[in-house]
Amino acid sequence: MTQIYPKVALIGLGLIASSMFWAMKRRGVAGHVSGYARSQETRDTARRIGLCDTVCDSAAEAVTEADLIVLAVPVGVMGKVAAQIAPYLKPGATVTDVGSVKASVVGMVAPLIPEGVHFVPAHPMAGTEHSGPESGFATLFDNRWCLIVPQDGGDEAAVERLESFWQALGSNTERMELEHHDLVCAVVSHIPHLIAYTMVGVADDLRRVSDQEVIKFSAAGFRDFTRIAASDPTMWRDVFLTNKDATLEILGRFTEELFALQRAIRTGDGEQLFDYFTRTRAIRRGIIDAGQDTEAPDFGRTKIER
Amino acid sequence: MTQIYPKVALIGLGLIASSMFWAMKRRGVAGHVSGYARSQETRDTARRIGLCDTVCDSAAEAVTEADLIVLAVPVGVMGKVAAQIAPYLKPGATVTDVGSVKASVVGMVAPLIPEGVHFVPAHPMAGTEHSGPESGFATLFDNRWCLIVPQDGGDEAAVERLESFWQALGSNTERMELEHHDLVCAVVSHIPHLIAYTMVGVADDLRRVSDQEVIKFSAAGFRDFTRIAASDPTMWRDVFLTNKDATLEILGRFTEELFALQRAIRTGDGEQLFDYFTRTRAIRRGIIDAGQDTEAPDFGRTKIER
Repeated sequence: MTQIYPKVALIGLGLIASSMFWAMKRRGVAGHVSGYARSQETRDTARRIGLCDTVCDSAAEAVTEADLIVLAVPVGVMGKVAAQIAPYLKPGATVTDVGSVKASVVGMVAPLIPEGVHFVPAHPMAGTEHSGPESGFATLFDNRWCLIVPQDGGDEAAVERLESFWQALGSNTERMELEHHDLVCAVVSHIPHLIAYTMVGVADDLRRVSDQEVIKFSAAGFRDFTRIAASDPTMWRDVFLTNKDATLEILGRFTEELFALQRAIRTGDGEQLFDYFTRTRAIRRGIIDAGQDTEAPDFGRTKIER
Repeated sequence: MTQIYPKVALIGLGLIASSMFWAMKRRGVAGHVSGYARSQETRDTARRIGLCDTVCDSAAEAVTEADLIVLAVPVGVMGKVAAQIAPYLKPGATVTDVGSVKASVVGMVAPLIPEGVHFVPAHPMAGTEHSGPESGFATLFDNRWCLIVPQDGGDEAAVERLESFWQALGSNTERMELEHHDLVCAVVSHIPHLIAYTMVGVADDLRRVSDQEVIKFSAAGFRDFTRIAASDPTMWRDVFLTNKDATLEILGRFTEELFALQRAIRTGDGEQLFDYFTRTRAIRRGIIDAGQDTEAPDFGRTKIER
């Protein structure tokens, strides 16, 4: 038992929040967990599957007396939710979020947090292509990174406590500066998702002229893309709208490189292609060495356990 | 025991050929399997791990008396290898290949096949990011597609026998017309690989300015790309050089779609992004329904068994 906060409130009950709940229960990280979701259907599901100790019918009720409040809603509505709960926050409480974009969230949420309440933005870098209250599992954060993005002049004790919390959920934590976070995430996550979405869209377009063959014969490369491209549309729409600058910068670099390879194909420059593909293979090796992936056929992914 | 050919010769001993050997042994699909690889090191490894009943020091020796000869070398050297073995082929034998591109291979190989020998091109759509003689495993082809691309006016019995062979190795088979094969594969496999290579290259570029953070924090999206981008550089160089027209056509469509999404991000058109991402999610569902992937956390990938 590693209780970090006596009472935790989860606002939003999707993949991340539900996984946080099961991970908290696994190690007794919270004394009591209340939860709220905007949709009645989600709240009903949560009650049915035992997600949260108490499922509340309002965000205000859920956050009352909470020591940690987790905003686990799409980035685009973080500000709206923060405004709803602000009057009900307990002095000394910590508000955090799990958004994939930080500059935009901080800009929307920070001004709404009352004096005496700490705001410590965070970003657990974990997920699957599934979403909703039933998609969560206790091991989602194990050995993954949770980036903590402290506010300038914020309370150090509150930051350290949130770090302990994420570590108790299984994550490694690292602090990162706001703008830098958004650039790194554009590269390792946002643009790869956009590209996967695009490729699947192209295939869909072709599918119409080739009688579902694309789906039927989807080889490994394309299958992996479709998995990525099956992620939650609302979440990803908000990511791209709110991390616009970094996204457009990396997209610019990507099309530049792609055009160089396209030119090599058109001109038949095999040496350039071979050199490029050899270099990217070495990068893969670096990722395995860094312990962020595995050579195992299942990629080290574990079965869902609650 | 389902013996289809008394003697099979494998020319090239990489991932595909070594997996074919273990799959043949699993069900007694061949009476005797001889193998040849250009490099002494590969032949030594093959002998050490028991890959092939006989490892020969020349392609000529390997194909002598063989009923099925499998060209399992990079697409770019198929013609060269076919020229080497042509004088030693037994009348009535079948030559096949496992190349990812068909028009180019047929153009190079078909003219070299002697009268009385059948040439039946094929393409097993299976692979991993590993390569070399030690990367093969018996279950690689299970429930995957092997596309058969018969020659106009070719021997029907030879085609049917090769289909039985691939089915005995665990594959589903389907016949496909030459040019159409290359277009479908450009979409489901070649372009996804090119894009993954490109994205990993972009990240590498950024890594230099951000102290390995990209590798350290590689989230699910990027990790999946690196796996694809770790595939054999020689094989992929040859694929792009030999499937140039279809590759460039699909690349054109891809950049068109990507620019449309980029524009939606720049102008803040959330509705367009949401609609696009919702559509691609449905495509993923189609792939699972078609039985070409699984919802299981390990993607249904099985452990290596010999």
